[in-house]
Amino acid sequence: MRLLTLRTETAAGKGTVAVRQDGATLTEIPGFADVGALLADPAWEQKAKAANGATHALDGADLAAVVPAPGKIICVGHNYRNHIKEMGRDIPEYPTLFAKYQESLIGPNDDLALPQESDTVDWEAELAVIIGKKGRRIAEADAAEHIAGYAVLNDISMRDYQFRTIQWLQGKTWENSTPFGPALVTKDEFTAGPLMTSAVDGEVQQSTPTGDLVFTPEFLVSYISTIITLNPGDVIATGTPGGVGHAQDPKRYLQEGQLLVTTIEGLGQLNNRVVKEA
Amino acid sequence: MRLLTLRTETAAGKGTVAVRQDGATLTEIPGFADVGALLADPAWEQKAKAANGATHALDGADLAAVVPAPGKIICVGHNYRNHIKEMGRDIPEYPTLFAKYQESLIGPNDDLALPQESDTVDWEAELAVIIGKKGRRIAEADAAEHIAGYAVLNDISMRDYQFRTIQWLQGKTWENSTPFGPALVTKDEFTAGPLMTSAVDGEVQQSTPTGDLVFTPEFLVSYISTIITLNPGDVIATGTPGGVGHAQDPKRYLQEGQLLVTTIEGLGQLNNRVVKEA
Repeated sequence: MRLLTLRTETAAGKGTVAVRQDGATLTEIPGFADVGALLADPAWEQKAKAANGATHALDGADLAAVVPAPGKIICVGHNYRNHIKEMGRDIPEYPTLFAKYQESLIGPNDDLALPQESDTVDWEAELAVIIGKKGRRIAEADAAEHIAGYAVLNDISMRDYQFRTIQWLQGKTWENSTPFGPALVTKDEFTAGPLMTSAVDGEVQQSTPTGDLVFTPEFLVSYISTIITLNPGDVIATGTPGGVGHAQDPKRYLQEGQLLVTTIEGLGQLNNRVVKEA
Repeated sequence: MRLLTLRTETAAGKGTVAVRQDGATLTEIPGFADVGALLADPAWEQKAKAANGATHALDGADLAAVVPAPGKIICVGHNYRNHIKEMGRDIPEYPTLFAKYQESLIGPNDDLALPQESDTVDWEAELAVIIGKKGRRIAEADAAEHIAGYAVLNDISMRDYQFRTIQWLQGKTWENSTPFGPALVTKDEFTAGPLMTSAVDGEVQQSTPTGDLVFTPEFLVSYISTIITLNPGDVIATGTPGGVGHAQDPKRYLQEGQLLVTTIEGLGQLNNRVVKEA
């Protein structure tokens, strides 16, 4: 099942609604403003399957970030062998964790905000895990039960700010810079493995199977939930493979007007135009 | 004005309510479940001043974290000269920023959860800034307008997890470990300057004036809002001074049964018993 968050505009104003995608048709799941609100209902899966609200064409739909306001976005660094190598590091014993705030998220076809303050804006294609069931100290063997599904995320990174200090947060959470979607694909329809790519104006930059993760989604759910409760709608961005612009020679960064396309086979595609902020 | 979040229990169940403290009396501010919800109302200050709901005695009141569920908790590292020195670092050019999630917050008199997984749990007394007005790219000269007030926070740190990797998050956000309160003291009644102390079983560990910050609250509001919108209820934990246990010789950490007291003159006191998780 594929679940998305659709932006709506009615006489009552602008809003969003959770929808189920069947082929080229989006069907509203009444009562849920977005996929995050849907996941907060323990019966989310049955309600999403049974929904038969108003329908919309997928083509031309105005999509929001699939979960627009996660309680937590937990990002993982150093989680693909080839990216660890290009950054000059050893295979780690523990996952490197850092945060991103919800204000950084944008929809799968939204403009990506290039801030005036940074000219070193880089791409990081990532497989995102979306939590579907609350838990603390979840055993790795039980972790799959707590995963609702997967989506595509691009952990856009302002490298100058990222490396101003020893903590990366300030380079990782710029407003309106992190494409996330297009859909939550439920875990019965996706397992980490398929190819993930990022491309800038049609030129492939990253291309690595999502099965090359050092720390799997299940391990990460178990590890993070040792520290803190994972709640429905929480997002784990599982890290990026080799091919980021900062590690190329010469270094390359996103420029005004470029089109960034991030794809994971079986999950979908993010198409984001880079637009300089006024 | 002093604003707090009071836990309540009625026939309808458990909840919380925002209250105003006048001397030893707490007065409910009807319609607002906590200080975070109150701050989301642009007329929060007038409504809080005018409120005359049910009253409670401060003595024995069951207090929640003053803002129980901030949208963002942004922590600052390396922000007191004496802590920078004890950690062996230089005075920084930029603030070091990292995150904490809301699930780590506890009330001013709650038990502090000592997890089975860590035996290097350390204290970090901090002055917390609470945002009262939304803004992006706020000039430093305008930053005071966006600050609702101040509170005390102890950025409890599991040093083993903090230093497992190069990113600190996993040592900074353990469930039920971060005391925060007791009150939001509005900015007309407090300016960074007064003494901040932490003490373990009555023995003072940290004692530094909050005026010794390298980066002031106003600078931090301006700097962070360059990156991302600050919203009402967001919290900036401005960093800790010297005297943490990890920097002592021999190193000292919190032990089962100890009482951690964190105080900022003019803001109040956090009294948290350290209790090992089952």
